Amino acid sequence: MENPQSSYTHTAFPSASFWGRRRDVVRTVTLPFQLDMLKKTGRYDAFKLKWHPSYSDPPNVWPVPNHLFWDSDVAKWIEGACYFLREHEEPDIRAAIHELVEMIRGAQQEDGYLNIHFTVVEPGKRFSNLRDKHELYNAGHLIEAALAHHACFRTDGLLEPILKYVDLLIRTFGSGSEQKHGYPGHPEIELALLRLYRVTQDERHLQLAEYFLSERGNPKGVDGQHFYAAEKEARGEREGEWPVYYPRDDAPYRYSQAHLPITEQPTVEGHAVRAMYLLTAVADLCALVPTGEAKTTYVDSLHRLWSNMVGKKMYLTGGIGAIARWEGFGINYFLPQSTDEGGCYAETCAAIGVVLLAERLLQIELDAKFADVMELCLYNAVLTGMSHDGKAFTYTNQLASSDLELSERKDWFQCACCPPNVSRLFGYLGGFVWTHKTVEPNQVELDIHLYTAASITVPVGDSKVTVRQETDWPSSGKVTFSVEMPSEVEVALRLRIPGWATEWTLEPELADPVVEHGYLTVPPPWVRSHPRFSLEIPMAARLVAPHPYTNQAVAAVARGPIVYCVEDADNTWVTDHFKSVIFDTSVSLQEVKRTDIFADETIIGVCAVDAASFLHVPESSDAWYGTPSDSLQANKKESLNFIPYYARANRGGKGMMRVGIRVQLG
Amino acid sequence: MENPQSSYTHTAFPSASFWGRRRDVVRTVTLPFQLDMLKKTGRYDAFKLKWHPSYSDPPNVWPVPNHLFWDSDVAKWIEGACYFLREHEEPDIRAAIHELVEMIRGAQQEDGYLNIHFTVVEPGKRFSNLRDKHELYNAGHLIEAALAHHACFRTDGLLEPILKYVDLLIRTFGSGSEQKHGYPGHPEIELALLRLYRVTQDERHLQLAEYFLSERGNPKGVDGQHFYAAEKEARGEREGEWPVYYPRDDAPYRYSQAHLPITEQPTVEGHAVRAMYLLTAVADLCALVPTGEAKTTYVDSLHRLWSNMVGKKMYLTGGIGAIARWEGFGINYFLPQSTDEGGCYAETCAAIGVVLLAERLLQIELDAKFADVMELCLYNAVLTGMSHDGKAFTYTNQLASSDLELSERKDWFQCACCPPNVSRLFGYLGGFVWTHKTVEPNQVELDIHLYTAASITVPVGDSKVTVRQETDWPSSGKVTFSVEMPSEVEVALRLRIPGWATEWTLEPELADPVVEHGYLTVPPPWVRSHPRFSLEIPMAARLVAPHPYTNQAVAAVARGPIVYCVEDADNTWVTDHFKSVIFDTSVSLQEVKRTDIFADETIIGVCAVDAASFLHVPESSDAWYGTPSDSLQANKKESLNFIPYYARANRGGKGMMRVGIRVQLG
Repeated sequence: MENPQSSYTHTAFPSASFWGRRRDVVRTVTLPFQLDMLKKTGRYDAFKLKWHPSYSDPPNVWPVPNHLFWDSDVAKWIEGACYFLREHEEPDIRAAIHELVEMIRGAQQEDGYLNIHFTVVEPGKRFSNLRDKHELYNAGHLIEAALAHHACFRTDGLLEPILKYVDLLIRTFGSGSEQKHGYPGHPEIELALLRLYRVTQDERHLQLAEYFLSERGNPKGVDGQHFYAAEKEARGEREGEWPVYYPRDDAPYRYSQAHLPITEQPTVEGHAVRAMYLLTAVADLCALVPTGEAKTTYVDSLHRLWSNMVGKKMYLTGGIGAIARWEGFGINYFLPQSTDEGGCYAETCAAIGVVLLAERLLQIELDAKFADVMELCLYNAVLTGMSHDGKAFTYTNQLASSDLELSERKDWFQCACCPPNVSRLFGYLGGFVWTHKTVEPNQVELDIHLYTAASITVPVGDSKVTVRQETDWPSSGKVTFSVEMPSEVEVALRLRIPGWATEWTLEPELADPVVEHGYLTVPPPWVRSHPRFSLEIPMAARLVAPHPYTNQAVAAVARGPIVYCVEDADNTWVTDHFKSVIFDTSVSLQEVKRTDIFADETIIGVCAVDAASFLHVPESSDAWYGTPSDSLQANKKESLNFIPYYARANRGGKGMMRVGIRVQLG
Repeated sequence: MENPQSSYTHTAFPSASFWGRRRDVVRTVTLPFQLDMLKKTGRYDAFKLKWHPSYSDPPNVWPVPNHLFWDSDVAKWIEGACYFLREHEEPDIRAAIHELVEMIRGAQQEDGYLNIHFTVVEPGKRFSNLRDKHELYNAGHLIEAALAHHACFRTDGLLEPILKYVDLLIRTFGSGSEQKHGYPGHPEIELALLRLYRVTQDERHLQLAEYFLSERGNPKGVDGQHFYAAEKEARGEREGEWPVYYPRDDAPYRYSQAHLPITEQPTVEGHAVRAMYLLTAVADLCALVPTGEAKTTYVDSLHRLWSNMVGKKMYLTGGIGAIARWEGFGINYFLPQSTDEGGCYAETCAAIGVVLLAERLLQIELDAKFADVMELCLYNAVLTGMSHDGKAFTYTNQLASSDLELSERKDWFQCACCPPNVSRLFGYLGGFVWTHKTVEPNQVELDIHLYTAASITVPVGDSKVTVRQETDWPSSGKVTFSVEMPSEVEVALRLRIPGWATEWTLEPELADPVVEHGYLTVPPPWVRSHPRFSLEIPMAARLVAPHPYTNQAVAAVARGPIVYCVEDADNTWVTDHFKSVIFDTSVSLQEVKRTDIFADETIIGVCAVDAASFLHVPESSDAWYGTPSDSLQANKKESLNFIPYYARANRGGKGMMRVGIRVQLG
């Protein structure tokens, strides 16, 4: 089994390509910009364990101090920076990493403990509120940072203190009578420990992750009580003391996916980022453990929860989480597009979590349904999270703006999980493009999940295989592959045929092609005789719509993996966030090459001429005695100019945007 | 100014009429049935101030003990029973009232205090949690019960102890430095005090109501703090201690309409029953106080909040409150039909509150827009709250059933506000039909808001005027009026022309008719020459739909004031709560006389032949890559058989029902 982390190291993205341009921006602009933010806000120096004035601020939301995640903000930035530093030397970044590592080392306590808040602000309270206080979440991000640091610098500068901290955690948590039978409110350490295990092969790292996963949701984990209930009691909290962000239902720990053991959870619930990080760890565990009943049950749960999510709780853009209150999942098919229609959260980190989960699922089961969603999220719900200039970010990604929440980005957030998460995702991007395996000493299998200009080099014994994709995807659907391989090595390729594709052609032709679970197998002899070939998947603008049970009565435009939106910059007549627009879906969708949006990228826009008519809704102080709304049309038509959703909010304007547009009622 | 309460006493409903039948059921079945429930559950004896085992039960929802409303349950039953007892002797009911009154008298403390919970369970904690603990709410219902008791028995048996309790409240609450600057979390006492004032003319009763209303929402009521904040602090509650049912927003007291002074509230918010009882009191105050700036501001607020509610936050049935968590209002235009579509609460008591508010608004401004909504609520959101046999009730009234919440009724609830509220509403019903005024010694004005078989007798000096409506409304729209009046008395009538009416005719004809604010003025000379005349408002089944901004994409059927639904008893093919039905609204709506639903009532049903086609939605474990849903039709048609929404859930069955039905997307 390959370490999935290792794939990225071999992937190269040409600078003048879709992802290459963005990765260059992250490396040259975003990383220094975010470093500056870390410094300005106090995060950079926080591991010095001095008091920061903001530590005295009352929490925005009880019981979570505003600075509680600072450790992870720094860790995620280090992780992302290390990925890029392996590819390009950046002296300022390198220097900052070194300084941060020194500060982190200096912040470690005698026994290995390593956490800013519980050392400076609440010493003596460590591990007393796993439910809400993000201690193990921070630890998980430190582990991931240490792994990236280790892979980049080949030193133990960060890994060493982190391993010492992990040793403390191993002593602290577990089924022993002297140990805490607990697990984090915000999963993250589980997936981090499994990544760590792939590098260390230390069974204790695997076992601690496995313990956190199997203990989670145990209704009688501590003296017949749920761990979180026992913990709450031990803190002396009262009956009515609950965070306001908890859902109100009969399962108080649904917020943290701890209302039931993972294997008994029928639907995906609660805080969306937590759910994704948790399931990513479960999938990773399934990839690591041999077959057996426990694994089967976990795999069944992954299928069940994945299906529930993608079939009933995912937006057209790949965004997840309709409910702002708990930043997470609502009921099945409840997917309004915006705050003023009832909710829409779709946090950037949650979409990143879907990508992480899909990548792990592809390791245990090669099925294009996972890669389809991974691609959908990457190009839409994730990519929209950063501005084209690399200096502004989103937290939530609604599908329609409103006066309450404009379509816009910000340079930073007090709870700053999303910006550095985007950076590290871009760093790790190669890991999502393909998966390779060396089956026998001379056989390489490469599963290609995403099409994009990139190349991968896989070492085989003393030799190596290089596979290159040339394409301007997603502008067009033509991809040219070239394979360089020594004569003694056999290369088998599996090419994903996307779920949205209506047809595909291989050139030269492959006789009797086999597509299984959405992947076209290209066998070694054919690769040998055709080391350069192309795949064409025609892309045309098409209409898409949410599931009818969402009761949205809207249509949207998509093309290949890209979901489109309308925004005010291209539709200057808009005054109401496109709320009153009725989209005539019988109008043909015309593709337009747009060079006016970004200086360095040609975008395929879509225009529907005169496709917009308008509801005429008089303001009235009376009760509504309407007839079905089709009769209420104003005498006016406009064209609809669509651009990719990811490109929104890059050109100023009024912040008005919409993905799904009202259709006529018949 | 007439006492609005007094109107009802003069109204008679013939037994064999729409409301007469129901009132007879309430008197002969519901009152004894609910009395039995009061006895079985411990409420009946609770004023004996003995410990009841249930007092030890943990609260279902912190911090509200489950028995906290028992005082009001008993009080509402007494109030309702007294209304009926004035019309018909019922010895068992009379005896129970007397016994209850004796127990209430016996429960009063030396200083006048009168509350079960704070005498038996938490003595010493009185008036320490006005925000959540319903003390003044219970007091308000006791006042209303005492008024009804006084009007029925002409004794002070109940009014005397209640006046003593009110004296204590007057000493306790007010702007004095020794007084509490507080007001109830659940309004009710304000409207009760104003009803009391109409009887007692004791200015202190008016002043206390006025104080509660004007102090409400004062951000600095107690030492620079909001009263609820000061109260919380005094209780020693902690930062994170909040009821789970509070909305999460920047205005923690929105739940109780105390986030801002009433006159500054831009929209109607929070718990719907609280909002209605509060605004009913405001309207009553406006009817009582002379003109002035304060009154103008209150009247403006009433208009603003009423418009917001009926235009943007009311269901087709007149139900209000989309959000279960706080039993109240969501954002504008957020009106899903059921739990599994995102929410729908529409509590029976809230609809009753709308009726109360509309009745008060008609006292200060005669406009049919108020009466239209009053009628809508009465015939739909309220009437559906009780079964035809008078023994089962609803708490919430969703517009569509789901597996999570079937269309059904229950015989009682632990929080039993709705059942006795329905009883007292039926008792008070005459008060909503018309308003009369004696303008000069010999001039009677009668504003007729509702058409129904009923007669009213208005005393004029030593004489009297009787006006009678004969009609089978709402089966037909023909109403015959007869007026009996002495020769010296002039009678002016104003007849409401409903907003849903497309035309109307008076027979004999009235030359140059004037309709102002929805009321047709019938002047005294014409009444004199036509003491018997008829009004015909044609009723035909019509399509209605919620406001387009609700994004519901549904159509419903209405006829006159009646909103219709489909349920499984008449549409036996249904298996999915009509979720997949597509309603072809071009099919003509056929009216059908139905004698099979209730033995004693002919109902006009509506049939749309072959109007149902069906979405074909395959269960899939994949992401949804649909096109707009119009293409997904199964090859099957059914007819839709509609019945009035109020008649639902009377015939057993599967509990499947729907008001608004999906329409075709164009």
